Amino acid sequence: KSSFNQKNHPHRRYNPLLDEWILVSPQRANRPWQGQTEKTLQEQLPAHDPNCYLCSGNVRVNGERNPDYKGVYVFDNDFGSLMKDDVEFSEETSDFFLLKPERGINRVICFSENHSLTLPEMEVGDIKKVVDVWQKQYEELGNLDYINHVQIFENKGQVMGCSNPHPHGQIWAQSSIPSIVSKAQENLKKYFDKNGTSLLEDYVKKELEINERIILENEDFVALVPFWAVWPYETMVVSKRKIENLIEFSEEEKHSLASIIKDVTTKYDNLFEISFPYSAGIHQSPTDGKPYPEWHFHMHFYPPLLRSAEVKKFMVGYEMLAEAQRDITPEQSAEILKRLPIIHYKNR
Amino acid sequence: KSSFNQKNHPHRRYNPLLDEWILVSPQRANRPWQGQTEKTLQEQLPAHDPNCYLCSGNVRVNGERNPDYKGVYVFDNDFGSLMKDDVEFSEETSDFFLLKPERGINRVICFSENHSLTLPEMEVGDIKKVVDVWQKQYEELGNLDYINHVQIFENKGQVMGCSNPHPHGQIWAQSSIPSIVSKAQENLKKYFDKNGTSLLEDYVKKELEINERIILENEDFVALVPFWAVWPYETMVVSKRKIENLIEFSEEEKHSLASIIKDVTTKYDNLFEISFPYSAGIHQSPTDGKPYPEWHFHMHFYPPLLRSAEVKKFMVGYEMLAEAQRDITPEQSAEILKRLPIIHYKNR
Ligand SMILES: O=P(O)(O)O[C@H]1O[C@H](CO)[C@@H](O)[C@H](O)[C@H]1O
Ligand SMILES: O=P(O)(O)O[C@H]1O[C@H](CO)[C@@H](O)[C@H](O)[C@H]1O
Repeated sequence: KSSFNQKNHPHRRYNPLLDEWILVSPQRANRPWQGQTEKTLQEQLPAHDPNCYLCSGNVRVNGERNPDYKGVYVFDNDFGSLMKDDVEFSEETSDFFLLKPERGINRVICFSENHSLTLPEMEVGDIKKVVDVWQKQYEELGNLDYINHVQIFENKGQVMGCSNPHPHGQIWAQSSIPSIVSKAQENLKKYFDKNGTSLLEDYVKKELEINERIILENEDFVALVPFWAVWPYETMVVSKRKIENLIEFSEEEKHSLASIIKDVTTKYDNLFEISFPYSAGIHQSPTDGKPYPEWHFHMHFYPPLLRSAEVKKFMVGYEMLAEAQRDITPEQSAEILKRLPIIHYKNR
Repeated sequence: KSSFNQKNHPHRRYNPLLDEWILVSPQRANRPWQGQTEKTLQEQLPAHDPNCYLCSGNVRVNGERNPDYKGVYVFDNDFGSLMKDDVEFSEETSDFFLLKPERGINRVICFSENHSLTLPEMEVGDIKKVVDVWQKQYEELGNLDYINHVQIFENKGQVMGCSNPHPHGQIWAQSSIPSIVSKAQENLKKYFDKNGTSLLEDYVKKELEINERIILENEDFVALVPFWAVWPYETMVVSKRKIENLIEFSEEEKHSLASIIKDVTTKYDNLFEISFPYSAGIHQSPTDGKPYPEWHFHMHFYPPLLRSAEVKKFMVGYEMLAEAQRDITPEQSAEILKRLPIIHYKNR
């Protein structure tokens, strides 16, 4: 019997935020790949594209014209998944056919008027303006009486279902707390009720001590590969201070967040020297007015690529039916990300 | 205030198998798509491909040669995610760094020696032989003392991460009950403990009464679009009788399962007149020897395509961070699938 080594032996790891296990198969990292490969856009885009419905001054599908904006620009999504309308509904109880109307607002947020940019290529000061708008939007939408949760996120890259390279993110604000957020909240609360401290604050302290999965750190934030990360180069940005949501951010903290976002996404671009695709989003307290002392602001980055710009990790089959699975270990990914420069490859 | 209509208004539905909600946005079905499109293989493949490592008589990457098999052929995956080795491990308790070695066996199961076939193009009698082997494998692997769960599944199509078009599936057998299965089990058990009946038996009875989401039915099985389906054309095949696992299947039931698999996958191929990609897999009772009266055999089909052979549904951004979301309603999908012929388009 050989003794267990997490670099060589299959094992499961526990995710305390979602209360679930994932399968890690380090020995599988070098299997050959003959399957589908991804296209990556390498061309230099123009600063303004007359065919882009997100660019300044252009007309959108529904006939509306964007203003000649500079910097950040927010508008209601023309094809939202939610509607503002309050509808008449009589709830029925049922074991199998439970259904509830859902109200909400979908917004698009352009990060810059410059069509050719992405977050890692923007100045920290300009990313800070995006964070300012996230803060304002969270507050403004959260203050509406029928909005109890505000999900801020970005899909970047064609492989992540993003249909327009213009730098932009989205906000889906709604009446209910969505399933995954509500699960995270339950586990944050369980920990808080038991220990009187924030799960993520205690976790980050331990990670800083161990220093094996930390990618970056500044005054106010830490970027790390969680011990239980699922995606090959998944990272999480956590505030050092227990901040419940964006409203509590100081000017300095907004600047620090902008700066760590720039550095993390620059490392991502440098990994395969392409514009690195991902879905990223913020988890923070609901906006239903209840107290949430257990909440701790954090941001997830879920990038799909595995071995190269062309080969992604497929979360299919076993992963859809049974359990998330990864090949390269979180420690190996952290090591690689940590060593990458924070100067963008295009500027070298 | 208009009154709620599930065909037009955004709403959430409850999935009692996984105890979670999903977001349905019927009004979003006709938004324009300018994003990534998928390639689909349309060429006629040869019955034997000298470069295919799954074909009869060919040599695999690790130097082993496949026998000159006819019909179904099973072998251990050369690049498995699990290992049989029992390793020495001393468990430590930790809030944040919980980890356990995982033992298991990964097998590949070729459905036919004919490289050019897929399940919908095979004879029912030949699919029945696949079901026979699933039954034997479930029993054989499940009887090993360190195997407590056997996951049988198929990834079909490049877009589902399948790297070889040769008709084949996989089996991942392991010591632990995987996260998603364990969640389903919890909810089946809760219902069984409360009602003394099977959740899925009662659900299927109700669905047969309503007859709005039923796609196909034979002596022993029903194929339907679950009320809480997430993927645009997701279906579930459920046994009418409360069967806990494959071992309990009679010869007739194995034939009925083969037959309904052929019909469901034929409808899928007919939808866009292509070889329709999906991940499919069986959920059944664990093999740890404990009694599982709450279990009820079923098979999930998760196909990614949304509007056409080229446009898939991206489960990204909001879906990864917050909650699964769908555009077309389950009832609309069911209606479309129900009307499709069970004669394969290639044979018309
Ligand atoms: O084993 P395969 O077919 O090469 O690999 C495929 O299926 C596996 C099981 O669903 C996944 O873990 C892989 O990401 C996927 O590419
Ligand atoms: O709204 P978009 O960018 O067109 O659409 C994209 O992001 C949405 C939110 O994550 C997803 O529901 C869509 O499947 C995806 O294609």
